[in-house]
Amino acid sequence: MVKKSLIALGALLVLFPTMAFAEDPSAATLNMGLNALWIMVAGVLVLLMQGGFILLETGSTRMKNAGHVAGKTIFTVGLCSLIYWAVGYGLSFGTEASEGLNKFIGIGNFLFDPSISAGDGENYPSTIFFVFQLAFAAVSLSIAWGGFAERAKLSSYFIYTILFSSVVYPVIAHWIWGGGWLAADGSQDYAGSTVVHLTGAMGALAATILLKPRIGKYNKDGSANQIAGHNQVFSALSVLLLWVGWFGFNAGSALSVGDGFFGYVAFNTQLGAAGGAVAAMLISWMFSGKADIPTTLNGALAGLVAITASCAYVEPWAAVVIGLIAGVLVYFSAKFFEKIRVDDPISAMSVHGAAGVWGTLANGIFATEELAGKVGVGKAGLLYGSGGEQLWVQFESVVVCGAYAFAASFVLLWIMKKVMGFRVTEEQEIIGLDLSEHGSYGYPEHLKKTGTSSM
Amino acid sequence: MVKKSLIALGALLVLFPTMAFAEDPSAATLNMGLNALWIMVAGVLVLLMQGGFILLETGSTRMKNAGHVAGKTIFTVGLCSLIYWAVGYGLSFGTEASEGLNKFIGIGNFLFDPSISAGDGENYPSTIFFVFQLAFAAVSLSIAWGGFAERAKLSSYFIYTILFSSVVYPVIAHWIWGGGWLAADGSQDYAGSTVVHLTGAMGALAATILLKPRIGKYNKDGSANQIAGHNQVFSALSVLLLWVGWFGFNAGSALSVGDGFFGYVAFNTQLGAAGGAVAAMLISWMFSGKADIPTTLNGALAGLVAITASCAYVEPWAAVVIGLIAGVLVYFSAKFFEKIRVDDPISAMSVHGAAGVWGTLANGIFATEELAGKVGVGKAGLLYGSGGEQLWVQFESVVVCGAYAFAASFVLLWIMKKVMGFRVTEEQEIIGLDLSEHGSYGYPEHLKKTGTSSM
Amino acid sequence: MVKKSLIALGALLVLFPTMAFAEDPSAATLNMGLNALWIMVAGVLVLLMQGGFILLETGSTRMKNAGHVAGKTIFTVGLCSLIYWAVGYGLSFGTEASEGLNKFIGIGNFLFDPSISAGDGENYPSTIFFVFQLAFAAVSLSIAWGGFAERAKLSSYFIYTILFSSVVYPVIAHWIWGGGWLAADGSQDYAGSTVVHLTGAMGALAATILLKPRIGKYNKDGSANQIAGHNQVFSALSVLLLWVGWFGFNAGSALSVGDGFFGYVAFNTQLGAAGGAVAAMLISWMFSGKADIPTTLNGALAGLVAITASCAYVEPWAAVVIGLIAGVLVYFSAKFFEKIRVDDPISAMSVHGAAGVWGTLANGIFATEELAGKVGVGKAGLLYGSGGEQLWVQFESVVVCGAYAFAASFVLLWIMKKVMGFRVTEEQEIIGLDLSEHGSYGYPEHLKKTGTSSM
Repeated sequence: MVKKSLIALGALLVLFPTMAFAEDPSAATLNMGLNALWIMVAGVLVLLMQGGFILLETGSTRMKNAGHVAGKTIFTVGLCSLIYWAVGYGLSFGTEASEGLNKFIGIGNFLFDPSISAGDGENYPSTIFFVFQLAFAAVSLSIAWGGFAERAKLSSYFIYTILFSSVVYPVIAHWIWGGGWLAADGSQDYAGSTVVHLTGAMGALAATILLKPRIGKYNKDGSANQIAGHNQVFSALSVLLLWVGWFGFNAGSALSVGDGFFGYVAFNTQLGAAGGAVAAMLISWMFSGKADIPTTLNGALAGLVAITASCAYVEPWAAVVIGLIAGVLVYFSAKFFEKIRVDDPISAMSVHGAAGVWGTLANGIFATEELAGKVGVGKAGLLYGSGGEQLWVQFESVVVCGAYAFAASFVLLWIMKKVMGFRVTEEQEIIGLDLSEHGSYGYPEHLKKTGTSSM
Repeated sequence: MVKKSLIALGALLVLFPTMAFAEDPSAATLNMGLNALWIMVAGVLVLLMQGGFILLETGSTRMKNAGHVAGKTIFTVGLCSLIYWAVGYGLSFGTEASEGLNKFIGIGNFLFDPSISAGDGENYPSTIFFVFQLAFAAVSLSIAWGGFAERAKLSSYFIYTILFSSVVYPVIAHWIWGGGWLAADGSQDYAGSTVVHLTGAMGALAATILLKPRIGKYNKDGSANQIAGHNQVFSALSVLLLWVGWFGFNAGSALSVGDGFFGYVAFNTQLGAAGGAVAAMLISWMFSGKADIPTTLNGALAGLVAITASCAYVEPWAAVVIGLIAGVLVYFSAKFFEKIRVDDPISAMSVHGAAGVWGTLANGIFATEELAGKVGVGKAGLLYGSGGEQLWVQFESVVVCGAYAFAASFVLLWIMKKVMGFRVTEEQEIIGLDLSEHGSYGYPEHLKKTGTSSM
Repeated sequence: MVKKSLIALGALLVLFPTMAFAEDPSAATLNMGLNALWIMVAGVLVLLMQGGFILLETGSTRMKNAGHVAGKTIFTVGLCSLIYWAVGYGLSFGTEASEGLNKFIGIGNFLFDPSISAGDGENYPSTIFFVFQLAFAAVSLSIAWGGFAERAKLSSYFIYTILFSSVVYPVIAHWIWGGGWLAADGSQDYAGSTVVHLTGAMGALAATILLKPRIGKYNKDGSANQIAGHNQVFSALSVLLLWVGWFGFNAGSALSVGDGFFGYVAFNTQLGAAGGAVAAMLISWMFSGKADIPTTLNGALAGLVAITASCAYVEPWAAVVIGLIAGVLVYFSAKFFEKIRVDDPISAMSVHGAAGVWGTLANGIFATEELAGKVGVGKAGLLYGSGGEQLWVQFESVVVCGAYAFAASFVLLWIMKKVMGFRVTEEQEIIGLDLSEHGSYGYPEHLKKTGTSSM
């Protein structure tokens, strides 16, 4: 009798979970679903950052170019999506390349045709991973537009989007995130201070060097004029949208809900952003006597850019310090670039370039052993007893990626300039790109009253 | 001894899961929670689209009407919520109707009083389903406002919101999504190219026919003047907000996280939007010599509208094609409606009407057997070996729903026009609806300097 | 043989779940992950509300102050984050205080250094709880700025942010949400009609009393002039962003996905908001002959503020009633405060103060026994048979918290006024705070054409 009841018991036990799991999803499926949901939300947040770029770029430029600046973002995000789908994603994450080649480039998944759902044992659907990664590529591209602003021909946006989304960004993304040689070296760039921000900033730098400064930016004696952006409300709102989107950017890069570590990443992100905003306003107040609004806004962004590499590797106090230093850095960096006659209307070189470099290097100083182990990439930084080893890897990443992004962009844009021209005519620049490139003002009622905009 | 240990083992096994599941939620509850969370996020994203409509509609119209155009959206979303709660939801999804009647209309759940949480075996809480569906109704309504813009009396917004949220939209939603007769026919409209977009566009068409064109839109010789919207930055940002919200719209319509299929829907959505933006800018550049910004923006929206029906039924390459065609279509469609003297300031007829029809029909061409089977509605399209059967069903849906939405709106608005008037006086239209309907300018500092706005 | 097979079966049963759960997360971990994800999304939505405040505050004020008003929000959100991290969070939720003291204040977790992930048995990671609570503190602070607008020195924003984020807001948050004495009394304030909204409004009231009305607001005979905000499109968009963010605010306060109850909270939130918008527009239409846009927008916000305390405690019909009454209240309240010479440019006193009080009291009337039991705080309200007991507790909360928030703010701001001054000079106020506090216009192209802005 005991035996019989035991058999019944055994059968029940076998049957019950089977029944339950025939109807209900398994723990693995539920876990995949959690990750899928978080990465989807994060991807949507990163796409929302394009709203930030629309406002940041228009707010920092003049009314006569506003429709052009805003509208081109929708076009270039669209074109970037198609090119990244056709080519870029495969160069970043394709796995058909032989091992030796794979150190430098991914091959495969061109015209990406993913499974319609996640298979057994997958952590998330590849469709959602694609959307998330595409959103990153589009952010990097929108950073580069800072260097084009108010003087590049519309056709150059078309050409550079294609080139950037295929051969500039994907190569660097592969090196650090796609299993390339910098990944093998232990390069720590959690969410892209280098991959996304420095790359975009180098594109901006190449463009602004080739385009030369805007009319009226520099006087004959070499001194600079301020060409104020037309709408600080747009700029402030842009920073808020970018800040909000950054939670998808950084915490989404965990690619997993798991034990809740993505919350730690978000926590550090908030501290870094806060540090940047506070430091930049105070430093500008101290040094120029007035608390400059654009500097404050750039400070928040610089804090966010800097904490992007290190958000998963550092302790909270270090996140605050990284943000504070980024806020100070962005103030002096902007002065420096203006002085060396780099006309950078959206401060891309300072916000994304200088702070991107600082954020990447900061890992080499502040990364803790526990967190490097948790993430599973690289080692602890200088302050946590591992000597300069990780700092060297971080330095290497910055130099190599910065150099590639700049050189590739410069060569491609130089060829483009020779073949089809890069800058609008002087007359077109003066009447503004809304009229010259698109045939109508973005603000027809504001501008018709006084004729063409001044400056 | 063996027996004893087996009994102990059995007891442990019985006990352990019981303990675990007494404290911890079951797999079914966790799965319900995942779905609930995703539909909630999606509903919030769809509500965010109203921010897009505020900016799209104000950006596409003139400064003298801006406060009116923006503010009425908050009012009508509020009123729509109350009416949909009281009546509309029950007509869409109520299940008390007898089977024969239920083909045409839902009955039940008026003044909806849902359970406070999900019951056993439910896939999501009905509260969250309500919020999600309400957000769709409100989007459809906001599309209709395109036909009212810059000349309808404020009171007409009040009346039409009540009618649309009760007897126009819910009927069509019931037919396709509420288990009505088109659902029985296998009509494929995953997220509402027809239910939401075409319905709204038909409301706009009825209104614009009854209202007649704005003062100054057409010359005596029948030629049209362009009445430019006042702010393309608003328009571009609106498109970005709508694009972002569309991930909730389309991928949220999966109503489930499950195996991650909602990611596939999002993936196709991105490709469709991208195709629309790129095609529209290029076609306008080619045909008019200038890359028109409003056309580009409408292209992105048309791509999104078109992919809305088909996002879960087609392969990625087809999503790109559907988007590209939508972008071309919206350019010529806008020219066509302008020519036949339909004055449609927000291009609702082209963006939501023409692209909505195209998107719905596209299913009948591109739907694959695998995906139709996965979703469980209808059959494969023309290119996947099922002949014209599904295309016919899609055509039927478009014709029937379009006709109902137009006829119901036209009759209701015609009666309203006779009883209380529909259009403001000529004088009111010239001074603008901010002053005439609300007593103050939306932009008091911009407009007071030059008196009443021109045009 | 039976024995053997039973042993094998037993082993399999022991092994299988072990294997499964060694690889796959447990139900408890998955449940924690669900909660973590929802609170993270909710926290991001609440941070997005700062975008709403940027637009609401600039839209309701004049062009000459726009850069200042918008930019200071980024700075103060940053500073609030650092102070709340260092001090405020610990005063709200720190648990090191002895039991007697803990009734009044939390102690512990200063310079908050959380675990990097959730531990066994935790419902969510403390990192995410921090981000969520910080976002609430920042909302309360941004409400207070309503009373500072267009005349306070920039330095006062700096000082008050520090004080508010440390000793004003955290004390009240502790009393009701941190296990303090009002929590022990059963005070029902689900998401902060009192904790967040009334507290912020009291800060605004203290400031506006100390600052006195803006130049030109009142005539010598005591009659008031309307100083219209410059951009109703910003205001309408702000309301939409706040409305969307409010789903994080209210439904996020469930801090759990669980059985889907957070959806019920969202459902009621939508009804409350809708009621407020509709009632406010209709009442203004009836009483002033014109449907005032700012009043309509304030109505939606008042509905949201009012439903914030009660969203989890009341039936749907009651949510509609609470919203409708809030919409009526905000109209008369704004008239009242204008009459008693409280110059409140953003209507903080009416939207967040009066509606916050009403919403908190409404619990004492409409809370049902079932829902109070579900939430586990307090008792049913007047209409559900519990007499006036809960209404008294609600009244006590409003009086005590309102008094503390006002008194603390008034004393701190009064000292600040004496020590360093609070209001800019008359000349500075006339030229605007963009020039006086930041050295450049927020709208340089709009304003330079006509010199300094008029009023």
